[in-house]
Formats: sequence, structure tokens, C-alpha cells
Amino acid sequence: MNFASDNTAGIAPEILQAIVAGNDGFALGYGNDDASRAVEQRIGEIFERDVAVFLVPTGTAANALALAHVSPPWGAVFAHSEAHILTDECGAPEFYGGGLKLVGMPGIGCKVTPPTLAEAVSHYEGHTPHQVVPAAFSFAQASEAGTIYRPDEIAALAKLAHAHGMKVHMDGARFANALVRMNASPAEATWKAGVDVLCFGATKAGAMAAEAVVFFDRALAANMAERRKRAGQLLSKHRFLALQYEAFLRDDCWLRLARHANNMADLLAARLTAAGFAPAWPVEANLVFIVIPQNLEARLKAAGARYYVRRSDSLAAPLKPDQCLVRLVTSFATHEDDIGRFVEFAAKS
Amino acid sequence: MNFASDNTAGIAPEILQAIVAGNDGFALGYGNDDASRAVEQRIGEIFERDVAVFLVPTGTAANALALAHVSPPWGAVFAHSEAHILTDECGAPEFYGGGLKLVGMPGIGCKVTPPTLAEAVSHYEGHTPHQVVPAAFSFAQASEAGTIYRPDEIAALAKLAHAHGMKVHMDGARFANALVRMNASPAEATWKAGVDVLCFGATKAGAMAAEAVVFFDRALAANMAERRKRAGQLLSKHRFLALQYEAFLRDDCWLRLARHANNMADLLAARLTAAGFAPAWPVEANLVFIVIPQNLEARLKAAGARYYVRRSDSLAAPLKPDQCLVRLVTSFATHEDDIGRFVEFAAKS
Amino acid sequence: MNFASDNTAGIAPEILQAIVAGNDGFALGYGNDDASRAVEQRIGEIFERDVAVFLVPTGTAANALALAHVSPPWGAVFAHSEAHILTDECGAPEFYGGGLKLVGMPGIGCKVTPPTLAEAVSHYEGHTPHQVVPAAFSFAQASEAGTIYRPDEIAALAKLAHAHGMKVHMDGARFANALVRMNASPAEATWKAGVDVLCFGATKAGAMAAEAVVFFDRALAANMAERRKRAGQLLSKHRFLALQYEAFLRDDCWLRLARHANNMADLLAARLTAAGFAPAWPVEANLVFIVIPQNLEARLKAAGARYYVRRSDSLAAPLKPDQCLVRLVTSFATHEDDIGRFVEFAAKS
Amino acid sequence: MNFASDNTAGIAPEILQAIVAGNDGFALGYGNDDASRAVEQRIGEIFERDVAVFLVPTGTAANALALAHVSPPWGAVFAHSEAHILTDECGAPEFYGGGLKLVGMPGIGCKVTPPTLAEAVSHYEGHTPHQVVPAAFSFAQASEAGTIYRPDEIAALAKLAHAHGMKVHMDGARFANALVRMNASPAEATWKAGVDVLCFGATKAGAMAAEAVVFFDRALAANMAERRKRAGQLLSKHRFLALQYEAFLRDDCWLRLARHANNMADLLAARLTAAGFAPAWPVEANLVFIVIPQNLEARLKAAGARYYVRRSDSLAAPLKPDQCLVRLVTSFATHEDDIGRFVEFAAKS
Repeated sequence: MNFASDNTAGIAPEILQAIVAGNDGFALGYGNDDASRAVEQRIGEIFERDVAVFLVPTGTAANALALAHVSPPWGAVFAHSEAHILTDECGAPEFYGGGLKLVGMPGIGCKVTPPTLAEAVSHYEGHTPHQVVPAAFSFAQASEAGTIYRPDEIAALAKLAHAHGMKVHMDGARFANALVRMNASPAEATWKAGVDVLCFGATKAGAMAAEAVVFFDRALAANMAERRKRAGQLLSKHRFLALQYEAFLRDDCWLRLARHANNMADLLAARLTAAGFAPAWPVEANLVFIVIPQNLEARLKAAGARYYVRRSDSLAAPLKPDQCLVRLVTSFATHEDDIGRFVEFAAKS
Repeated sequence: MNFASDNTAGIAPEILQAIVAGNDGFALGYGNDDASRAVEQRIGEIFERDVAVFLVPTGTAANALALAHVSPPWGAVFAHSEAHILTDECGAPEFYGGGLKLVGMPGIGCKVTPPTLAEAVSHYEGHTPHQVVPAAFSFAQASEAGTIYRPDEIAALAKLAHAHGMKVHMDGARFANALVRMNASPAEATWKAGVDVLCFGATKAGAMAAEAVVFFDRALAANMAERRKRAGQLLSKHRFLALQYEAFLRDDCWLRLARHANNMADLLAARLTAAGFAPAWPVEANLVFIVIPQNLEARLKAAGARYYVRRSDSLAAPLKPDQCLVRLVTSFATHEDDIGRFVEFAAKS
Repeated sequence: MNFASDNTAGIAPEILQAIVAGNDGFALGYGNDDASRAVEQRIGEIFERDVAVFLVPTGTAANALALAHVSPPWGAVFAHSEAHILTDECGAPEFYGGGLKLVGMPGIGCKVTPPTLAEAVSHYEGHTPHQVVPAAFSFAQASEAGTIYRPDEIAALAKLAHAHGMKVHMDGARFANALVRMNASPAEATWKAGVDVLCFGATKAGAMAAEAVVFFDRALAANMAERRKRAGQLLSKHRFLALQYEAFLRDDCWLRLARHANNMADLLAARLTAAGFAPAWPVEANLVFIVIPQNLEARLKAAGARYYVRRSDSLAAPLKPDQCLVRLVTSFATHEDDIGRFVEFAAKS
Repeated sequence: MNFASDNTAGIAPEILQAIVAGNDGFALGYGNDDASRAVEQRIGEIFERDVAVFLVPTGTAANALALAHVSPPWGAVFAHSEAHILTDECGAPEFYGGGLKLVGMPGIGCKVTPPTLAEAVSHYEGHTPHQVVPAAFSFAQASEAGTIYRPDEIAALAKLAHAHGMKVHMDGARFANALVRMNASPAEATWKAGVDVLCFGATKAGAMAAEAVVFFDRALAANMAERRKRAGQLLSKHRFLALQYEAFLRDDCWLRLARHANNMADLLAARLTAAGFAPAWPVEANLVFIVIPQNLEARLKAAGARYYVRRSDSLAAPLKPDQCLVRLVTSFATHEDDIGRFVEFAAKS
């Protein structure tokens, strides 16, 4: 009953097999190998566009590198107050970005709306040089609440951002989960809607440790190679990052893995709803949040269930004093049995 | 005939097997798993001391994190002019260290001697606050020339460094190669000789991507967890870093792999010497440098040999105009056959 | 009718005279002169304690240096959302602090209360190393709303901050204005109440460009000399900073200047109240805020009055759509005549 | 007999008078006053070109801001090994520049020649992304040895720098001293010879604390306003910086002050030569270096002479063991009498 995170799973078999298979022989380091070169082209095919791709081992690094590259040190990056970049990266964007400023914004279900963004940005205009300058809008797809932005929602936000001279960054640690829920192509869900740079995650989706920073305009990526290197994010045996991506993207593996995770989330949500625990937010990716009594939470934990209790200001209604918000995450590795046991235990407790 | 680097090899079978074997089931992320906890203890056993250990995926990250942790932004870090941290990390120590200053020093065979260190440090004393402050002495073991520092040499340098209030950092990307050449324990080769923090490399030695920052005084490591996280260097599926180390250190695997690499270097050096190409520096680890005519170099390259031509000011005698300095690196994966073919080709050319 | 800021005034005559008088002869640079040495001792006398003092030319520099010195790059600095350090320094604390994080908090009259601070800090505990670490509480005295913290209020906040391992920073750009309003000594208003580091401003109070970073524990100031120098904040002809402070502090000049500014604010507030414009917040220093119709504001501006219209979430009641919040600042140089003219104009408009 | 530095002098009378005269009345802060606006135009007239000007109070800040603005964090800035930016700014360029790298180069009389620059740059090309990237060439005019670069020398260096994609920065802390020695206009000595950004110093030349960062291409200065502000280098009572410059530049005051300083240096050099102490380097600005026996140095110090003993690798011949290198600096305030007394004492000792 491990629903702590999608990163508690191991490596998807297809990806592990690729690492094993690609281990033979010698290959030049630092990305100068065939597999590494192929990945950029493959990602370009998927997104139907020439792209510049930089593979790194962590999502925090991907986000921090991307944000630092589209914002000067005196830039403001606008994002939801509970976005991973604000709450879980220990200041990585600020470090990478030479002290850039993250500006949090509210929003139900951890989603930001255009009026909220417009209001936030308005506080950072017209007072130069005393204030930092609007530089980027960042959003997580799927969001930290497991909700997703539809292409038209992205387009509206991106249009607003661009009108204010900002770049648009998508934290796609769970991009696959979001995509398979939508009736949209990768291109439609990203650059066609106005995304400038995407952190396209594979780790949570089944890889060992592989994230891709994808620039949809190669010019925007100038000197990112130096930025990544000096951040200690250029792997010497880089082929193993590339091999993970190659397998991840081959034959729709990434979509298949994401669909399984989402299906498990749907199943979990359906059963919990049937048991009287309707999700706190729409279940659109692989995260299910439920509001439960604290004593039930204690019993679930005692029974061996693994998950995190979260604090959030993005609920439609605040928690009652004896309630808590529980986050349940499914992954490619989640088994239906675990869901059954968890819900059964919750229902009878 | 791939002698380009020890990072052109793949993953040593023992380590790859450990990744595969450890892939089952769920494990908490970010180092909160059993394997991660075990690694710190295991490294402590090897070094006969309580240590604080931080695993990261790259050597550049390990060095930069370690140096930033022992030097303030206004600190000077003294190292050989051709040290990896000065020449091959694109300013990572400066970035991680908030703008700290690396001070290069000369030395034959890429080794620094106490008088050289003393002279260099003397330029940074007595002029506060106009100058950066001596903060650390860093040296590579083995050095970039493939030479090694004996424990008494380290002790003399460390004593001097400590007398000036500096910490001692060992860039041990090739620590195993150095160690198996010496009649010394890991403890004797490090903290007993005065090393404060060691970047204990596994990647070049056979891992996929795993380096350990080892603090010999736990107090010195305070808040390194935050520093690593905000650098995007904390892997979510951290167990796979730990599994690599576990296998690397089990049953003297690391020493065995290093011995093979060194033996191959010795063999290469012996055969090259017999063919008239005596190494430029003593072969004490897994690197062999030879000075050859440029036209021979061109033929070797054309024949498919892979290696790098290097520039160095650390030769005992300067190159002649038509000569070049060739670096040949062996690894756990080097085959005797390749050495034979390379030397044969060089000899007959 | 210039109420734009206390920095639109020139130099107080006593201070200008000191610059002129101290101009003769030669003096060693960078603070190695008699006047510079005397200032530290003089400030120590005023605060009844051994202090470490660092003079710099701007308040932004003073704040940024102080905060960077008491917070690591992974630290969180808690302050009111409308504090100068968050809204008017273009990210200086983040730059100086290597990417530290400023956390804004709400509070009527730009004042933070202990429960608000406790709540804010609680979000940054228990989730290491994924979050930045509480490092400092910073508050402005007087606040941006012209309100002040009494010693017992400071003590309660400082006690809470210290209990969470944080340092306490007072942005005293208007410290003199706050002090002369209270029945407290400089010591009681600062370190006796728990302040660890004070930015003791002179510029707004009548100097040309001089601020003092005052550490009440000399150990806390270790290496601040280097930090200041590498920030380009160590003046070569440092004596002129010292001369400004010497004159500022001689014969209660600083208190006299501040009392005049406060008296003018009181007079302005009284007359405005009589004219139907009661201040939005208690007038406790040299700032008066009034809520007026936008068309009146337009007429005032047209009449040549100089002031800033501010946005604030710290009002007890929100503005109506046709209202605006006007900030009026008095200084040592404010004349009663200007107040009369301004109020007369406002009253009749 | 104070020859310690040109910053041991006070404020030139013309400049002090301007501060006093400009103190009346109110003026908007942060550079939004008439005097501040006029300065940019005045400097443009002097340099016969539209320029972007940023006034700051220290030379270290000016250099650090300028270098950070023309170099990315992964840039290399090439300068003479004994340049102020390398030896006397405690890492300010590295701090402001997010960890950029300063690369020292040798050169007699603290001057760099094109072959030396070419050689140094060659070490930083062709190894991307492992190395920092050539970003700027910086030189001091006059140099730290008191020598100067003629326009054709600057042009040759700038041409080389530009050919390698680098910007050219002139540290003109003593620009006036250099200029009055040459038969060249300000334009010919700077942008016409290829200088991109000049730190045009007034402090050493007679101001209290005022330096101007002058960009000869306004586009290159984009966002410098934010960079200066977040560095705490934007003075609130900015008019007093402007007033200093206004007076400094009015009626050739700056040239007159510099000529006096240079004349005093010439006189000092001539008398010392007559007394048997020929200068170590050509005296081309307001610095005179002499090599004297250490026991004479001790007697001079005992007699009350003020100067600094320097270490240098830029002498044509190394010092003998009992010798030392003494730096004597003249300024607008140097009196002929002091020179007479100093030389007399040296001659008879």
C-alpha cells in the first residue's frame, strides 16, 4: 500500500532493460554518443518541431536550469503558491537563477487563472528599478493537486504572460500523466499553446533518474550547455540518460506507463468515492487527495499504508479541525490489489 | 582502442547487477531507504571512522558541493593549475561557492609541493579585507597527470593548509586507482593524513553515475543536505545511487576494478616504453601520457584509436614544435588486446 | 509641498558642515582613519554595549549585507509582505544572500504579530531538506506604514524567532523617528528586546548617504569586512561616511532631526484630520497616509504637491473603487508652511 | 609626506563647493533629479557619443557591475594578474558576476600585450562546455604600475578581443591621469579604440565617492538599472553623486586636477632619479615606483612617510633579497613641499 509518491517505484522494466542492453562497449562521454544525439531528434519528432534538449538526472535541476535560463537574476517568476518550485526544491530556482524571485499565487486545485496572474504581475510593473521584473510564468502539468491545464487554459495564460514580456515554463514532472488525459498532441499541449520551455519528466513516470529540459526555440537555449555543466548536471556516462529516454519514448512506452498510473488513480478514486471519500480535487492525473478524519489517518498509517499528509490552501473549503488532507499517488508500478486493500481498510475503519 | 577516458566504459557487471537486483518493490525517495542508510555506514567502516556521506550523480557536483561547503564566498581555494576543478568544470566551484576564487599553482606531474602552496598562500594574507581569504587546499588523487600523492606528502600539505586555517579537499575521482597503488589503508590515505573532505568517485571506476562526498568530521557537514537539495543533486530514486555504491564497495569490488585499470596502464606503459615511447610522467594510476610526433598522432587517430591530446605546463621539459602530448586512460573495461593493437600500431608507424 | 520621501531633502546643516570641516589633510582610506574608528565606539556608547559597526552608503546595501550575514543561502527570512526588503530593493537580499528566500506575511499597519510569524514559520519546519530553513525575522522600525513596534512587541517577536533558531534583523532606516516616539533607550528598543542586527539609518534622517550595520554581538559579525568589500560597499574615502555619523550622533543631533520630522507629521495629521482626512494608520513616525478620492488626488498633484500613491493590503478596510492611498513623508527639512498649504489645498478642493 | 594612495586626499574644493551649493531644496531621489539627468548628457558630450551612464559610490562596484553586465556567469574575464579586479576587490567581480572567472595574465609594467592575450584566450577555446567561455578583456588605465596604454595599443587589444567575441572593459579609476598624458581625446582613448564599457573614476581624482559606469552602446546597458539597484548601489540622494560629477567635469576641472597629480609624480620621479632612485617603470600617470634597500624603507617609514610596499611580478628584473618595491602615489592634493622633504630624506638616508 505504497502511495507515498510515484518516485517510490523502481525502474520500469522496459527502461531497465535498455540500460542493460546499452551497457556494452565504449561510448564517448558527456553526450557525445549516438544515443544522446538520437534523443534530441526523437523528442523533436514527438513534439513536431526542432527542439533543443538537455538531459539531467533530477526534476529539481531541470526546473532550476530552465527558470534560470529564461529569467535574469532580477526577474520574477510567477507560479502557484504550492508549486513544487516554491515548496519542495529548497530554493533551487533562486540558487540557479542568481537570486531570482518566485512569486506565489493562489488558485483552487493548485491551478492559476489568468485574472490571478494578471493581478500578480500588476504588482511588479511600473516601479522599476526598485522591483524585480516579470520574467516567467511557471506552472506544473499535472499540478501538485493532480489537476491539469487544458490547451486552451494554457494558451490563455501564455498569451497573458507573453504580453507582459514573460516566458512560459511548464514543470512537466507528470507531463505524461496529464497528456494521456487530454485529447491533444504533445505539440498542442505545449508550444502550440505557448509553452517556451518544458521540463519533460521521465523519473516519476518510470525512469531511474532522467529529465529533459526541452526548449521549443533553439535560440532560447543558447549557452545552456555551459549552464548545465557548471551546475554539475552533465553526466559523464551520459549515454545512460539517453538510453532511459530512448526506451521511455519507444513504442509509446511513456504513454502506456502513464495510462496505467492514471487508471490506478481513477480506480482508487472511484472506490474511495464509493466508500464515502470523494476526492478533494478532480482526479485528472495520478494523484488522489482525500479529506479524512485524523483518527482514520492514524489507523491507515498504523496499518502500513504509505502516503503523505499535506497542508493546502487550495481546497474549495477549509479543513475542519479534526480533518486532514491525504495525498495518494499511483505509478506505473501500482497494483490493483494494493488499491483494494487500502480502500477496504479505509472503508471499514 | 578506446583510451579517451575511463568514463567511456559502461557499468561494471557487479554494479549493473545490483541495480537490476534492487529494482523490485517500493522504497522511499530522497535517501530515506535502507540501502541509502547502509551506504554511509559502509563507507564509515572502510574509512574506520564516523563519516557523513552525500551521494550525487556527478564528480563535478561532488567537488563543487564540497568546496562550497568548506569555503565562504570570499574564500580562496588553492589547487594545481591543471586541476579538473580549474579546467574542466566550467566554473562549477565558483557557481556553487557564490563566487569563491580558485587559485592555480604550478607543479611537475600536476602535483603541488608544500613550498609552492606556501608561496601561493602568502599572496593572500595580510591584506584583508581587500583580498579573498585562504579557505581550502584541493588536490586530485590521482592527479590529472596520473601521479599520486603518498600519505606523507598529503600530511605535509595538509599540515601547512591547516596551519593557515584552510580545509583540505581531495578530489578522489580516481581515488581507488591511487589507493591500490599505495601501501596504505583508506584511512591512512585520507583523514589520518589530514584530508577533511573527500570526493570519493565511483563513476570512472565502474559505476553508472555515483560519487560520494565524504566528510570525516560530521560537524563540518552541517546543512549539506540543504545545499545538495537546492543544487538539484538529491536524486528522488536515491536507492539507485546507494545500490551502485553498495556493489562497488562489496567484497573489495572497487579495489579489484581499480587494480585491473592500473594493471592495464602498467602494461600499456611497459609496452610503449619498449617501443620507444617512455611515459611523460610516472604511471601511478590508470593514466599514461606519452610525447609523440604530431604525424604519428595523426596516424593513430586515423587508425581508430581514441584518446585526447592535452596541453600541459607540468612537463619536466617543454614539447618540441612537432610534438604533442597524448593522454591514454585505462579502465576496468580495458582489454589487453586493445593495448597490444595500439602499441603495435604506434611502433610500426 | 514635497512629501515624496524623506530622501528628497538634502543634507542637514550639521552634517554638511562636518563634511566640510573634515576635508582637510590626508587620511588613510577604507576605514583606517581616526573618524571611522571613533564611530564604532560612539555607536557602542549610544547602545550601551560593545558593537561591531559597518558603514555603507545605502539602506538597501545595509539590509542586504545584514540579512546575507545572518542567513545561509538556504535560509528563509520572514518579513511583512510590504516590507522594503520585499518590495523596493529589486531582490538585493536574494542577490547578497546567494538566493535566500524572503517570505512575506500579512499584518495591519505593516506590522507583524507573533501568531502570524508562528504560522508562517510552521510552514517551513519538518520538511528538510526539501524546504528552505527559517533563518531570520526582519522588521522595519518604523514600518512602511509609519507605525512602530514597542519594545515589548519586539521582545515577543524576537523570543519567538530565537526559539525557532532565527536571528532578528531591524531595518532601521527610520529608527530615529521610531525611537523618539517611544519612552525607551536605544538599547531597550533594540538588543535588550532581542534584536541581533540593526540597520541604523542616517540618510533619510539627514545624512547625505550613510547607513550603519550594527551587530550587537561582535562574533556574529565575523568576516563582514570581507562581505562588505566584495559587495563594493567599502568606501575608499571612508572618513566621509564616518564624519556624517559623527555629526549625526553628536549632541543628540539625530534625535533633534527626527523629532522635527515627527512633529511635522503630527501637525500634518492633525490638520488633515481637522479637514476631514483622518490618517489611515496611527501616525507614529514621520509618515502620514490618507485615503482620499482619486479626483482630489489628481488636483493635489496638479497643484504641485509631491507624494506617492501606494497600494497596500495592510489597511483595516479596503479602498473603495474611487479612492486612493496617499503617502506623505516629512523630514528634518519639512517646513510648517508647506503643511499649511497642502492641507489648505486639500480642504478646499 | 602622504603618498599612500590618491584616496587619502580629501575632496577637491571645486567638488566640495558643488555639494554645498546643491544642497538647497528638495529633489527626487534615485536619479530622478535634474542634476543626475544632466550628467549623462555631459559625459556624452565629453565622449562625443550617446552613452548610458550609471553613477555609483565605489570603484569596486563600478568594475564589478560592468564586468557582470558584459560576462555571463560562465564567462572568463582576462586581465593582468596584478589588476585591481584580481587582487584588491575581494572577489567582487566573481560575486556580482555569479561566479565568473578572472584569468590573470603576465606583463611588464602591468600591461598586457596582444600575444599574451591571444595565448591566454587560446586556453579557453575548443573545449566547450567544460570550460568557461571568453567573455571580456579588462585593463586598467592607468595600470597598477602607473603605465598607460596608448590608443593604438588599446585598439590592437580590442580588435583581438572582439575577434574572439569578447567585450572590452577599461578600469578607469585613473582615467584622467592617463588621458592628460596622451595626445588623444576621451573618445579616441576609449570607444574609438574599441572600449565597450568604461569605469570612469572621479574618487581618486578628487571626488568624495563617485564613479561612473559608461556604456558606449546604450543597448549593452539594458537592465543595468536593475543590476545596480539590487546591488545596493543606487543612492537615494543621488543628486549628490551627480553634483560631484558636474563639478568634476565643469571647465576641465578633472583634467586640471589630473595634471597636477601627474606633475607632482613627474617631479617626484625626477628628484628621485637625481638622488639615484630611478623609477622601476615609466612614470606615465600619478604613480611612482622605486626599488630601494629595505633598511632605507624602514627609515622612511620611521620618518613619517606614508606609502605602501608592493609585491610585483611585473618588474623587468626581480628584486634582490634586501630590496623592496615602494609605491608612491600623488594626487590633486599633493604639495611640492612634501615631495622635497621625502626625496631629501631618501637621499640623505
